[in-house]
Amino acid sequence: MITRHGPTPIMHRVVEHGGVLYVGGIVADDRSVPMKGQTEQILVKIAKILGDYGSGLGKVLTATLYITDMGQKDGMNEAWNAAFAAADLPARATIGVADLGPNILIEIVFTAAR
Amino acid sequence: MITRHGPTPIMHRVVEHGGVLYVGGIVADDRSVPMKGQTEQILVKIAKILGDYGSGLGKVLTATLYITDMGQKDGMNEAWNAAFAAADLPARATIGVADLGPNILIEIVFTAAR
Amino acid sequence: MITRHGPTPIMHRVVEHGGVLYVGGIVADDRSVPMKGQTEQILVKIAKILGDYGSGLGKVLTATLYITDMGQKDGMNEAWNAAFAAADLPARATIGVADLGPNILIEIVFTAAR
Repeated sequence: MITRHGPTPIMHRVVEHGGVLYVGGIVADDRSVPMKGQTEQILVKIAKILGDYGSGLGKVLTATLYITDMGQKDGMNEAWNAAFAAADLPARATIGVADLGPNILIEIVFTAAR
Repeated sequence: MITRHGPTPIMHRVVEHGGVLYVGGIVADDRSVPMKGQTEQILVKIAKILGDYGSGLGKVLTATLYITDMGQKDGMNEAWNAAFAAADLPARATIGVADLGPNILIEIVFTAAR
Repeated sequence: MITRHGPTPIMHRVVEHGGVLYVGGIVADDRSVPMKGQTEQILVKIAKILGDYGSGLGKVLTATLYITDMGQKDGMNEAWNAAFAAADLPARATIGVADLGPNILIEIVFTAAR
């Protein structure tokens, strides 16, 4: 069974299947701040989203972090490590990409267990 | 159990496990057209591929859209919304990347339920 | 149930859930060599990692290959095809990205069945 949550004009925010929540790419709302602040915003958003559907930061399986400035990776990791308990850190990849949209320094795609 | 479909020299087009179809990256065959047309071709291809293996566009869980020109995102979304029923829209991320090969404006990676 | 293996300061190397191993992005240790050699190193590493947790190269479901030089794709594929039995080739996508870190020509994200 497929359960879809949070419809937008182009996607569902979360699609659930087989006990896994597949979450659409998340960006910060306030894009005037550097990568650390954008990452903090994303992590607040994903914690709320996962909580809404029976999961949470402690159940994240994987994260792909797409970033447009490798030079700000330290700030990203500071925000990251402040949000996750060490025992709950997911598998992760950080990929430096060309363009995420105006002023978007980071976009994260998460999967989580329910 | 792992079931693999559609062998190519470097991959299987579809790998099935636990009720999920993992599909290799799909690009358009006619790369002379802009992003909207390339997206349309990809969506025709994925509908056919999923149909061949007991799934379909209505069972797509996630899509990662890698594109080389964010300026053509509107055309991409027009093709996207023409192909999916609103209730069936998957989770999605659109990532602007550096290079997908000659004249390839978009490549999409899908997962779907069987 | 979620089982996590191989903690690092920022992630777990492998997160297991529902019979699937989600593996964090892998890069080569010796980055002085071209893409073929870096790919060979990654494939040795993933074979070891998967073997440690009850899986193996023959059970890889998907791979996303992020590369910074499409011109070296042939070398990448030579290493790829030397490592996988034809019958075991996973679903795959190769994405040309902007930056993976100093001298990193390729990073691969794998998922595998247990």
